Amino acid sequence: MQYFPAALQELADQFARLPGIGGKTAQRLAFHVLSLPMEDAQALADAILAAKEEIHTCPVCQNLTDREICPICDDDTRDHGTICVVAEPRDVIAMERAREYDGVYHVLHGVISPLNHVTQEDIRIKELLSRVASGGVREVIMATNPDTEGEATAMYISRLLRPLEVKVTRLAYGVPAGSQLEYADDVTLSRALEGRQEI
Amino acid sequence: MQYFPAALQELADQFARLPGIGGKTAQRLAFHVLSLPMEDAQALADAILAAKEEIHTCPVCQNLTDREICPICDDDTRDHGTICVVAEPRDVIAMERAREYDGVYHVLHGVISPLNHVTQEDIRIKELLSRVASGGVREVIMATNPDTEGEATAMYISRLLRPLEVKVTRLAYGVPAGSQLEYADDVTLSRALEGRQEI
Repeated sequence: MQYFPAALQELADQFARLPGIGGKTAQRLAFHVLSLPMEDAQALADAILAAKEEIHTCPVCQNLTDREICPICDDDTRDHGTICVVAEPRDVIAMERAREYDGVYHVLHGVISPLNHVTQEDIRIKELLSRVASGGVREVIMATNPDTEGEATAMYISRLLRPLEVKVTRLAYGVPAGSQLEYADDVTLSRALEGRQEI
Repeated sequence: MQYFPAALQELADQFARLPGIGGKTAQRLAFHVLSLPMEDAQALADAILAAKEEIHTCPVCQNLTDREICPICDDDTRDHGTICVVAEPRDVIAMERAREYDGVYHVLHGVISPLNHVTQEDIRIKELLSRVASGGVREVIMATNPDTEGEATAMYISRLLRPLEVKVTRLAYGVPAGSQLEYADDVTLSRALEGRQEI
């Protein structure tokens, strides 16, 4: 009962391997590609290959870049004595969007997660340690996600950093700006209370 | 504030042009492609181009195929005197899955939809008319979706077919198998009642 042409089935299968794309969606995407003009399909295929070919990780901060050194590490006006440690490249974008931070970053590319078979060896911790060990760093800000794995990873790294005598801090917990107290969960509220500040 | 490398942004933009893929999902897909081994990314790009290059519409039934004539039209054991008219190639798959129909198909590639600027000229009605006019067809079964646009398209086509003196039928309406009456909507129920049959 194979009434899909093989090339269409193969395309749907390829789409179905992408995260969050189920079988039905993959089929719909495959049909959509068939309905595209050839140059649009070519542009999509080219973009996939170009991204793979041109983008690598910055040797300093491990963020994704198409230059030798990423634009943030290459920026002399930023404070290279402060390193903000994040789990993923998208977290760098989020931090930059806040326009508040002018230090540099370190991207771990994941968090320690025994359930998903991600150990401390699989994320870029060694690179962070040797960066801090090489001197000139005053503060490391742990900015992994405020969930169990993000917390555990931050704790683990901060323990490794202790012998290097650098200040290690953590993003503040509290109620999100613009949110409503009645919808805040217990943990968030109790942490907001603990971390209360004088006004 | 462009901290995404250009090739990554371009890839995310390309994904975001696909139907049902929003900006955030497109970003996640782009990051995923970066994390793939090169051969997997190549396979995805190749599948897109191969599908576009190899697949065309069957000159008889307009369904998608990679052969000269699609396997259904090419199958002499099927009844070529009965044509089932569907809106999309995926509807052929659905009908075939039911293993009940042994006639042939005609794929319209859409339904008439003034709101979406799809007119009768934009879907493959002419091809159906000339197919029926060339003789040998006893029955045309309208199997467009049972919604407003599907109904209107079926009515429009059946009127065009009238002068050709062919029997035109419509899929039966009724309650879906395995469903529960209490959740059936009014229109479905009243149509199921109208179409009731002796047992």
